[in-house]
Amino acid sequence: MSYDEIKYEVEDGIATLTLYRPDAMNAFTGKMMFEMIDAFDKADADDDVRAVIVTGDGERAFCAGADLSQGAKTFDYESREDRPDKQESPVKPDGTVDYSHEAVRDGGGRLTLRIFESKKPVIAAVNGAAVGVGITMQLPMDIRIASDNARFGFVFARRGIVPEAASSWFLPRIVGISKALEWCYSGRVFGAQEALDGGLVSEVLPQDKLMARAKEIAREIADNTAPVSVTLTRHMMWRMLGADHPMEAHKIDSRAIYSRGRTDDAKEGVVSFLEKRKPDYPVKVSDGMPDFFPWWEERSYE
Amino acid sequence: MSYDEIKYEVEDGIATLTLYRPDAMNAFTGKMMFEMIDAFDKADADDDVRAVIVTGDGERAFCAGADLSQGAKTFDYESREDRPDKQESPVKPDGTVDYSHEAVRDGGGRLTLRIFESKKPVIAAVNGAAVGVGITMQLPMDIRIASDNARFGFVFARRGIVPEAASSWFLPRIVGISKALEWCYSGRVFGAQEALDGGLVSEVLPQDKLMARAKEIAREIADNTAPVSVTLTRHMMWRMLGADHPMEAHKIDSRAIYSRGRTDDAKEGVVSFLEKRKPDYPVKVSDGMPDFFPWWEERSYE
Amino acid sequence: MSYDEIKYEVEDGIATLTLYRPDAMNAFTGKMMFEMIDAFDKADADDDVRAVIVTGDGERAFCAGADLSQGAKTFDYESREDRPDKQESPVKPDGTVDYSHEAVRDGGGRLTLRIFESKKPVIAAVNGAAVGVGITMQLPMDIRIASDNARFGFVFARRGIVPEAASSWFLPRIVGISKALEWCYSGRVFGAQEALDGGLVSEVLPQDKLMARAKEIAREIADNTAPVSVTLTRHMMWRMLGADHPMEAHKIDSRAIYSRGRTDDAKEGVVSFLEKRKPDYPVKVSDGMPDFFPWWEERSYE
Repeated sequence: MSYDEIKYEVEDGIATLTLYRPDAMNAFTGKMMFEMIDAFDKADADDDVRAVIVTGDGERAFCAGADLSQGAKTFDYESREDRPDKQESPVKPDGTVDYSHEAVRDGGGRLTLRIFESKKPVIAAVNGAAVGVGITMQLPMDIRIASDNARFGFVFARRGIVPEAASSWFLPRIVGISKALEWCYSGRVFGAQEALDGGLVSEVLPQDKLMARAKEIAREIADNTAPVSVTLTRHMMWRMLGADHPMEAHKIDSRAIYSRGRTDDAKEGVVSFLEKRKPDYPVKVSDGMPDFFPWWEERSYE
Repeated sequence: MSYDEIKYEVEDGIATLTLYRPDAMNAFTGKMMFEMIDAFDKADADDDVRAVIVTGDGERAFCAGADLSQGAKTFDYESREDRPDKQESPVKPDGTVDYSHEAVRDGGGRLTLRIFESKKPVIAAVNGAAVGVGITMQLPMDIRIASDNARFGFVFARRGIVPEAASSWFLPRIVGISKALEWCYSGRVFGAQEALDGGLVSEVLPQDKLMARAKEIAREIADNTAPVSVTLTRHMMWRMLGADHPMEAHKIDSRAIYSRGRTDDAKEGVVSFLEKRKPDYPVKVSDGMPDFFPWWEERSYE
Repeated sequence: MSYDEIKYEVEDGIATLTLYRPDAMNAFTGKMMFEMIDAFDKADADDDVRAVIVTGDGERAFCAGADLSQGAKTFDYESREDRPDKQESPVKPDGTVDYSHEAVRDGGGRLTLRIFESKKPVIAAVNGAAVGVGITMQLPMDIRIASDNARFGFVFARRGIVPEAASSWFLPRIVGISKALEWCYSGRVFGAQEALDGGLVSEVLPQDKLMARAKEIAREIADNTAPVSVTLTRHMMWRMLGADHPMEAHKIDSRAIYSRGRTDDAKEGVVSFLEKRKPDYPVKVSDGMPDFFPWWEERSYE
């Protein structure tokens, strides 16, 4: 698959996914969604990828949100010509909607649920405006850093719609329920410093230092840690947010410590530490995940 | 219903609910609880109300907590003359308590569960002491701002009782488990700055600027956003705190984006933005909530 | 039971549990785990203990993590001579592992689940390096304060293993998912200030002020609050982290307010407050917990 609305490059163990609609402030489209999902599939399957950086082309925007070029029709999928599932309609003869129909599914949510499943750490390098789906798509990414000209807006209530992309699940877990509501109620656009103060991003840097810092974070992971350990850690942490008791974590981490402890990765980890040298872990994510992974059942949309 | 222990006023789209027991530092009573619940019913039913501000009368107290005028009997409902359900007793002949009995229900919790159900955003303007139920009643409110003379105390363990009003669910989700325990273990009273540092309030202002700021927050919502979008956002965010997987959010926000996208609100939202003018949303909360709302089942006390 | 690898002392209502392997930076062993669990049993059963402080011997380390003296065998329990359940193996004849076997259980998790069950508040006084299980064992403790020479590291991915001790449940709930992942992905060691900024500890003090401050926190609890109230508060707060709706808290706190309100503790709490004197609560944890406690079912490892 070659891409039109994103760029995807792998170098020195780091994949960089660049949102690329230079004439449209990288505004989100259905096509961009499918290309991004494909790129995350590629990154997961590629043992040379230790971390994924997501950024936007240019210095103005990460992603300006939904493409509003269809005006009043923008969010009215029945009346749009370009919706992915045009041939099918979830509207029943009596005018009510079959909400369980695939065509109802929000595109932002398809993407964030895919990023939630990522086997590789994901770092957002927010190089400019990130508004609407431009910010909600970042919420299942693990680490967010921003340039000082970045701006953010959960503008949905100002467009007559609602926060999407499963952001009602992600956002309060990242910034707290009160800040999440404050930003989503007002729908106002705010700057990088407020995003930092509110815990939406962890660092703010000059534009020309942003990608170097994102790569430094990725580099530290790639150079020092066992790939399978990182993949397990990602899924343990995110999924235990939904567990109602620490025993659920104990069940999984006991299995993980026991099975990983028998691998050459764990021997290399201890021995390289004792010998004060860089480690060289032999086990790969593509064929070395422990036999209990994945331990969860897939959720369906119904 | 006219009120004795609160005041309720609506002006320019904003309801102000004032705790009003001027001779008793607005201390909480069963009567105040029922009046507050009634006022929230009114606000929900009134399309002219876009946000609710809750504050206390005077400059000394928001609410000083439970009324202790009955001394040692204060929390012993069997021995009190004024309890709401005096006619019934949950104490069985053998002296044990039927805990599923309605009369056992904590009054603070009846109130916070009602506020949890609010269809309108709720802003606490904490104008002075907020102790015991005076602070726990604020936890299901969305935004809390305080005057610089405000004081807070989760004093329950110093009275031989426990944090109530469902605060064991709300407080750790707002300020984190460690800060929640620290405040509740010690039961000490602390100032506005500590509340700000700990994330209990989001802003601290001079007393004479407090209400203006609360109204400014409410104003920004009222002037810019679609009422139905705000009501949906409120329930999506709070309720997804209890969901174990982002797919649950995707199911709801897909339905919401799809159905809202077809309304004149969404058309007005996009068109007013493109035309750089103030929006005028036609759909009302009283009769315009989408057909899948509410999507949850009510919880009963048993 | 007398202890070899910890010290346990009770003075003025405060138990101090000191990790004690002075020649090994208090590195964690199976023996230390069993001794710590026994000490928490003692503290729970002893009405003279109002709070537990956990610290490390000396000024260099709280606990340097797993004892790596067995080198490459460290995490390979089948090949170790000293594992607690040597007689039994969870490895089946076909080479696969019976993960439900008790011998698979992670020792750090056995300890943190025990601390999770503690009836007494637990304060970590982090007097130096806290790495690996040295920091994850602290996560179910209620309050963490650190000396300015303390260092922290979630180093698991650098050893080829994963975060253990149920830390995938605890850590994101304490510091947020993004910070949790950042620390666990990189596995780097960081200082006390970063731990403070990230919310891992609540205070940083000079080494020679650390224990005095920990005792001051414990003292405030012991001198002012009802023991049964504090035990109920601890379990309400921690366990409601796993509840999906505030009604679950309302059910428990209604029972607690109702039953506690009838005790002499609640009468003493109100009367001592009105009389502006120190309270003297008569009810003890050992025989005075309300009849609905515990209200939860135990989780088994399977």
